[in-house]
Amino acid sequence: MFGTAWRSVPLIDYPAFGVKTILGNLGRQIGRHQSPETKATTAMTLAAKGHALRQKVHQRLRSKIADDERDTFLRAIRPFVLLGQVFGIFPIYGITGSDPGQLRLKWFSLRVVLNLVVVVTALLQAFFEYGRLKMIGVNAKNVSGLIFFLDAAVINVLFLNLATGWRTVASKWHEVDQTFNRTPYQMVGWSLRKRLRVASFTLLFLAFVEHILSIVSTVHNQLNEIHYCNWTVPDYFKHYTLRRFANIYLNFTFNHLSAVFFTYVSSALTIYWNYQDIFIIAISIGISTRFQQINNHLRMLSDGVLIPGEEFWIRVRTNYVQVCELLDDVDRAISWTMLISCATNLYYICLQILHVSKKLANPVEDAYYWFSLLFLILRTVIVFLSAAHINDCAKKPLEIIMKIPNVGWCVELERFSTQLKSEKVALSGMGFFNLTRQLLFSMAGTIVTYELVMLKFDQQSESMGNIPLCSKFAFEKF
Amino acid sequence: MFGTAWRSVPLIDYPAFGVKTILGNLGRQIGRHQSPETKATTAMTLAAKGHALRQKVHQRLRSKIADDERDTFLRAIRPFVLLGQVFGIFPIYGITGSDPGQLRLKWFSLRVVLNLVVVVTALLQAFFEYGRLKMIGVNAKNVSGLIFFLDAAVINVLFLNLATGWRTVASKWHEVDQTFNRTPYQMVGWSLRKRLRVASFTLLFLAFVEHILSIVSTVHNQLNEIHYCNWTVPDYFKHYTLRRFANIYLNFTFNHLSAVFFTYVSSALTIYWNYQDIFIIAISIGISTRFQQINNHLRMLSDGVLIPGEEFWIRVRTNYVQVCELLDDVDRAISWTMLISCATNLYYICLQILHVSKKLANPVEDAYYWFSLLFLILRTVIVFLSAAHINDCAKKPLEIIMKIPNVGWCVELERFSTQLKSEKVALSGMGFFNLTRQLLFSMAGTIVTYELVMLKFDQQSESMGNIPLCSKFAFEKF
Amino acid sequence: MFGTAWRSVPLIDYPAFGVKTILGNLGRQIGRHQSPETKATTAMTLAAKGHALRQKVHQRLRSKIADDERDTFLRAIRPFVLLGQVFGIFPIYGITGSDPGQLRLKWFSLRVVLNLVVVVTALLQAFFEYGRLKMIGVNAKNVSGLIFFLDAAVINVLFLNLATGWRTVASKWHEVDQTFNRTPYQMVGWSLRKRLRVASFTLLFLAFVEHILSIVSTVHNQLNEIHYCNWTVPDYFKHYTLRRFANIYLNFTFNHLSAVFFTYVSSALTIYWNYQDIFIIAISIGISTRFQQINNHLRMLSDGVLIPGEEFWIRVRTNYVQVCELLDDVDRAISWTMLISCATNLYYICLQILHVSKKLANPVEDAYYWFSLLFLILRTVIVFLSAAHINDCAKKPLEIIMKIPNVGWCVELERFSTQLKSEKVALSGMGFFNLTRQLLFSMAGTIVTYELVMLKFDQQSESMGNIPLCSKFAFEKF
Amino acid sequence: MFGTAWRSVPLIDYPAFGVKTILGNLGRQIGRHQSPETKATTAMTLAAKGHALRQKVHQRLRSKIADDERDTFLRAIRPFVLLGQVFGIFPIYGITGSDPGQLRLKWFSLRVVLNLVVVVTALLQAFFEYGRLKMIGVNAKNVSGLIFFLDAAVINVLFLNLATGWRTVASKWHEVDQTFNRTPYQMVGWSLRKRLRVASFTLLFLAFVEHILSIVSTVHNQLNEIHYCNWTVPDYFKHYTLRRFANIYLNFTFNHLSAVFFTYVSSALTIYWNYQDIFIIAISIGISTRFQQINNHLRMLSDGVLIPGEEFWIRVRTNYVQVCELLDDVDRAISWTMLISCATNLYYICLQILHVSKKLANPVEDAYYWFSLLFLILRTVIVFLSAAHINDCAKKPLEIIMKIPNVGWCVELERFSTQLKSEKVALSGMGFFNLTRQLLFSMAGTIVTYELVMLKFDQQSESMGNIPLCSKFAFEKF
Repeated sequence: MFGTAWRSVPLIDYPAFGVKTILGNLGRQIGRHQSPETKATTAMTLAAKGHALRQKVHQRLRSKIADDERDTFLRAIRPFVLLGQVFGIFPIYGITGSDPGQLRLKWFSLRVVLNLVVVVTALLQAFFEYGRLKMIGVNAKNVSGLIFFLDAAVINVLFLNLATGWRTVASKWHEVDQTFNRTPYQMVGWSLRKRLRVASFTLLFLAFVEHILSIVSTVHNQLNEIHYCNWTVPDYFKHYTLRRFANIYLNFTFNHLSAVFFTYVSSALTIYWNYQDIFIIAISIGISTRFQQINNHLRMLSDGVLIPGEEFWIRVRTNYVQVCELLDDVDRAISWTMLISCATNLYYICLQILHVSKKLANPVEDAYYWFSLLFLILRTVIVFLSAAHINDCAKKPLEIIMKIPNVGWCVELERFSTQLKSEKVALSGMGFFNLTRQLLFSMAGTIVTYELVMLKFDQQSESMGNIPLCSKFAFEKF
Repeated sequence: MFGTAWRSVPLIDYPAFGVKTILGNLGRQIGRHQSPETKATTAMTLAAKGHALRQKVHQRLRSKIADDERDTFLRAIRPFVLLGQVFGIFPIYGITGSDPGQLRLKWFSLRVVLNLVVVVTALLQAFFEYGRLKMIGVNAKNVSGLIFFLDAAVINVLFLNLATGWRTVASKWHEVDQTFNRTPYQMVGWSLRKRLRVASFTLLFLAFVEHILSIVSTVHNQLNEIHYCNWTVPDYFKHYTLRRFANIYLNFTFNHLSAVFFTYVSSALTIYWNYQDIFIIAISIGISTRFQQINNHLRMLSDGVLIPGEEFWIRVRTNYVQVCELLDDVDRAISWTMLISCATNLYYICLQILHVSKKLANPVEDAYYWFSLLFLILRTVIVFLSAAHINDCAKKPLEIIMKIPNVGWCVELERFSTQLKSEKVALSGMGFFNLTRQLLFSMAGTIVTYELVMLKFDQQSESMGNIPLCSKFAFEKF
Repeated sequence: MFGTAWRSVPLIDYPAFGVKTILGNLGRQIGRHQSPETKATTAMTLAAKGHALRQKVHQRLRSKIADDERDTFLRAIRPFVLLGQVFGIFPIYGITGSDPGQLRLKWFSLRVVLNLVVVVTALLQAFFEYGRLKMIGVNAKNVSGLIFFLDAAVINVLFLNLATGWRTVASKWHEVDQTFNRTPYQMVGWSLRKRLRVASFTLLFLAFVEHILSIVSTVHNQLNEIHYCNWTVPDYFKHYTLRRFANIYLNFTFNHLSAVFFTYVSSALTIYWNYQDIFIIAISIGISTRFQQINNHLRMLSDGVLIPGEEFWIRVRTNYVQVCELLDDVDRAISWTMLISCATNLYYICLQILHVSKKLANPVEDAYYWFSLLFLILRTVIVFLSAAHINDCAKKPLEIIMKIPNVGWCVELERFSTQLKSEKVALSGMGFFNLTRQLLFSMAGTIVTYELVMLKFDQQSESMGNIPLCSKFAFEKF
Repeated sequence: MFGTAWRSVPLIDYPAFGVKTILGNLGRQIGRHQSPETKATTAMTLAAKGHALRQKVHQRLRSKIADDERDTFLRAIRPFVLLGQVFGIFPIYGITGSDPGQLRLKWFSLRVVLNLVVVVTALLQAFFEYGRLKMIGVNAKNVSGLIFFLDAAVINVLFLNLATGWRTVASKWHEVDQTFNRTPYQMVGWSLRKRLRVASFTLLFLAFVEHILSIVSTVHNQLNEIHYCNWTVPDYFKHYTLRRFANIYLNFTFNHLSAVFFTYVSSALTIYWNYQDIFIIAISIGISTRFQQINNHLRMLSDGVLIPGEEFWIRVRTNYVQVCELLDDVDRAISWTMLISCATNLYYICLQILHVSKKLANPVEDAYYWFSLLFLILRTVIVFLSAAHINDCAKKPLEIIMKIPNVGWCVELERFSTQLKSEKVALSGMGFFNLTRQLLFSMAGTIVTYELVMLKFDQQSESMGNIPLCSKFAFEKF
């Protein structure tokens, strides 16, 4: 039978890549359509075709590869991290250097001080907000201000903690990046750096637009109120900050410097939430890109022409395990951040949807509400999908392995295949859940259920805790 | 022991099918019931029986097979696709030819123009419906009109998009169909074409009945109203269309041509939703039939008489993987359609069940309501079950492999078996869920929960957005 | 190392059982605790101990086995099936014979006629109950009467349908029972017949008690009402039946014969529901007992003294697959019954719990309510647990296989082990769910959720559809 | 290729540990970075490095191991069990001895009598509480008192039952502990005894604080009431107990001895609940520590320098299976306790959260409420997490096995790896659920859903069953 003949097709050796090729598919196709009699003549044609194929394979392997040692994750997120440090988050030192071993948390540095100042201010604001809530009464909606401050403080502290252990993770990541920036791995499409920068800055831009819209909406409402109440406001910036940070200026006297400071802190806190999500997205892209590279490397086998030997699979599996280990380390490092991010996003989506029935006062507020809700959902979905993409990419090799013909089957391949089948390679929220597409689906189902149940409950608690128009500092009246 | 004797039973070679047979089961049964002493005599009977068996096997393999190269999926759905194009959906060109390579989307063709005209009209109607809703107030029920228009437009655009990539999928499908319309695969029962045509036209007929019932119900209600309000209606068709497309004719003046056009568009939009579901059902049948053929091919092994060699399994596994790849491609191509179909069906089931407590005005409306609800549930269940059937069929080979005796076990078989065990071979809604029977079960549970929660909520929002009888165009009064 | 020494321990052959034994564990234990120097002397003691062990093994294998060809499932359920036929359910012919090939559904026999008469009467009662409901108004509770009649009719028809295909299943079952009533399989504890009879008649007795309690409660309430309304009732049986079957006697004139007939039908319908559950329980016990026998057979290996050869595992796996196939056939045959049973039980549990807050009129009603609720829950739990027990037993062999030392490992064993790991061996409700313990857990969670949601809804619909005291035939007043 | 060269690296034998080492990783790293030409020279360096490595390996294996035969689970929980016996729970005899074979339940001993007295008293109190509830009316909250008594009695009886079978489990556990307290297993970090004692006594201390806070809160409320109602209370202890055990002293006359007795019983019952949770935590720590030891043992392989032979894996797998068997036995022994613990904790968390909206009378009550709720949640989370930790630890070996290079791969390793992948090694609540981190996550989701639904329901039933201030014995007024 041709089955045995097949096995005698010579394995061609490409030492540089650890790939052996046989003319498998070709032989198979010929064998399938022809009667045994015509096989002898085909053998010759085969030899001729074989040469052409070998050329093609050479070309395929050599051409696309362009080593770029500098296309690392750490370099790519550098501007993002630096921007964050301006707002006092993730104050790690040595980010501008090229050696991940230099990364460390210098406790007595400007960035850490800035970081701590913002955290303390956030906690202070939470404290005063708590006082304000106690005066005006709590309902399901106005408690969100307090949660915002606490949440921002927690996020910041988690990143401070992450900074202490970042060197280990970064070193590992650097090592992985070294491996994958070299032959035989290649990058298809955008470079890692481009991917990360486009993703992070697009989201940052949208976050910026949302923040501006939020300010415009507040200003618009204040102007309306001024008009409605016939107030005269000589210094508008003072008026704006007085009312914006009412929980502070009820307890402290106003001065312009502090107003600027609070405006800065307020912007910083707003950014943290976005920062956290974008950080997770960046990490997800960074890791899934590496899995994709493995897949691209394997895809050249999927047409059945090349059948690699056991060394090839040893190398691929070793690299695969390396990325898995990195994923494990990263997962452990950001597990709390992950949990907080999911919880925050879910909470705010539920909260925002609850407002859907509320009559909004004017088109500006309306625009802000819808932009903010859609951006929130978009960001959450991107966080989930990019994290789930790790899982998708990590499972891909199975499809290619499925197609490896029997002649190329070996123990290493069997181990690789069972490993791929049974392991859950994904980011997890502390092991409580794995971030896969199915999770996103069930989360959506849960949100719908919660909303349906809460819509009822909400209508009743609405009467409490509202602030009438024209009250000088809102809560004074209570 | 007979265990070793068993192994020495000669493997009979059927080169044409790559099947080797041993008289395994027979030998086993004899060995089990007889004492070792009588074994020698049995060996002779065995030889005689062996010949008879071989004949039977020959017959079984040859007889039932009738190659029908023309029983392809693409041919089978041709009338269905053409019918759709009359209503401006899936305007692919080259559907009547026999070469899938000719399929393409010609942007400047009548079908595409028709398609775009319908989409634009649907969007226009959605816009005017939005205006109408703004005037009369929104509740959980009357928002369904708006959703209907948007949904139909989305479905249409998705099929337009599908048309751009259909050639690749169709070519692959054609290839698969070629493989399975040849020896040794056979078709048990109805041909693929018959299955697809019966399924699609039965459902289309029911959809048609539903549409007629809907018109009858509307007409009946209008006649009742005319009688109740003592109106005189000279041109009934004008009256009917004026009230039916009230959201349009409030903004445009009436003329008979436009009325006919809107009636056509309205019918088209109603059909889209059915079209989408039937398309998914057809695809599911098309793929699961191929898996069934593999199962039928394997079933002749399940009595343990034939024990095929490794080449047999290589071929079977190769074909199995081929169908899996096709499924993957199709899944990617229709993933959005799948999602929209599920979401639409679930939404309308929930909505319709909510009406259950409403007192219906007359038996005609009653009949329409129940027919429409049951048809909706039936169609949804069929979509789910036929999609889940792919998964059922794809898992079937396991049962037969389980029974292969040890002597026929080989590496290829082990790979096939592990592959069958671990992979999720099913249509998926973009990877968010796999369409299996379990999903249908949990969906049903979810619907019950939602209904129980909403029954309460619904009673409260009912007071808003209703239109009193005898208002000339309903919304004019608001 | 002792590892290699171990392998040279002679495999002792027990041809009758296909078991080879090595002194594995003993050798291992000695090897573990002793230094290499003392090993030579131990070898001799080993030989001596070896003889004793061999004796023990002989004894163990021979002693406990007592072939009982008559301990089959079909014989065991015979009285239960006959009892059912008295009440017109499962009217299969040939149940008293010993040959399952004789089983068939004779359409023109007394049992089938009886069966059809009961079904028609049930449907009639459903029809009149529907009329009654239309008059007095429907609420979540009084609709249960209608559902009861329809449910009973459906159950009956499903068993009629089962009867048509029972012969195939029964033949297969008979074959399996033959295998497991022979050496080397043994039955530990009660025989299958005893298990089935005790289970079914205990439950039937409880069902009988419940039915009596129901009658007592009705009579007690009627006497109270008679007393309260100062009625004079000359013929109490007439009064009882008139009010009990009010939906009938409103349309037909009373006579004593028909009253007896309706009492008989009413009892029959009440029994169907129990019959269905007990049937499922019996089937579950019948199958799980066979798996248990396999486990008992394997357990003699679990101390590591006996290490069987490949023939042993081929036989065990063949038998295991045989039971799995039986399970598959049974599952297909009773899938609708399974679904209806689960749905009915869940519906009535939800319904009964809803009554919990209702003030019951008197202690008799109170006793009936609690007995009925507890019996209902108990029966449902037993159905689920006994069905789940199949899955538990079918997974057990894994634990023993886990302990087989390396020396006894073979391809057949590997196949058995992978098969055990990956397959879902369980009864399923048409593939929608598998009956395992986890399912019972999630069902309980679902019931709690539904109850919490419905408790609210129920209080509102309660005002509709109640019947005041002293209304002659209840619904006449409406 | 270096692949074959690699295999010829000599396997170095460490008989004492059954470990063979090859210079695998080193060879691999050299091979990867160097061209084939320089390989000859590297071979020499390799030999030199090899010696250093061998030394390091020796050291690593010998140094850290300190056998401590006395660090067993049974010894470690001894003080905890003795403390429990003072409060009449788990009255097993022979706990102070070192031989687990001596453990038994002596029915005629002081501990059992004490145990029974407490149970009977609890049931009595449940009975009187039931009477009290019948008088004042039941609502969702005040029924908790009755449930508390019944729950405590059930817990006690379950431990009494556990005591009858504890010897078997304890013997097995002792055996496992023997194995793991010997070379080559080592304990990293705290000894088992320290872990168990710190965990149990920290939780006991918190439980003690909670109990004190509860008394303080009750006293504070009583003093407030005395002040408010202008009562004169000569004997405060009498007043306290009279009101605390009102359900008793309504039926019996007061005397100081009985008051002390009831105070004792009340404390005992409060402790049971904590006792049960701590017992589960202790068991979880005891078992997961053993898995951790296996992991630590394997971790020295994870750098790829040591590659153990098949004997090593046989031993490791045997020990792994031993711990699994222990886990199985323990799981069966405490399954009911597990179920009751989960149910109790979930019920009380739901109940306590329902109180969140209630206005608390004073800061003392407030402090008690929050401490109690947080402690309850903390304890539940610890129970779940420590039980889930078993599963986490039992899955860990997979990661190390993943990294074993091909040269060290063997049948035993394959069996170990498949076993690790497919089995659910975890505590389970009678097979209804497995205690993993995912379960904790879905439980949290369920609690949120229940709370959202119940918040509504609760507001309505609140009006029933409250006791006004100054009512002498609360329920007398009804």
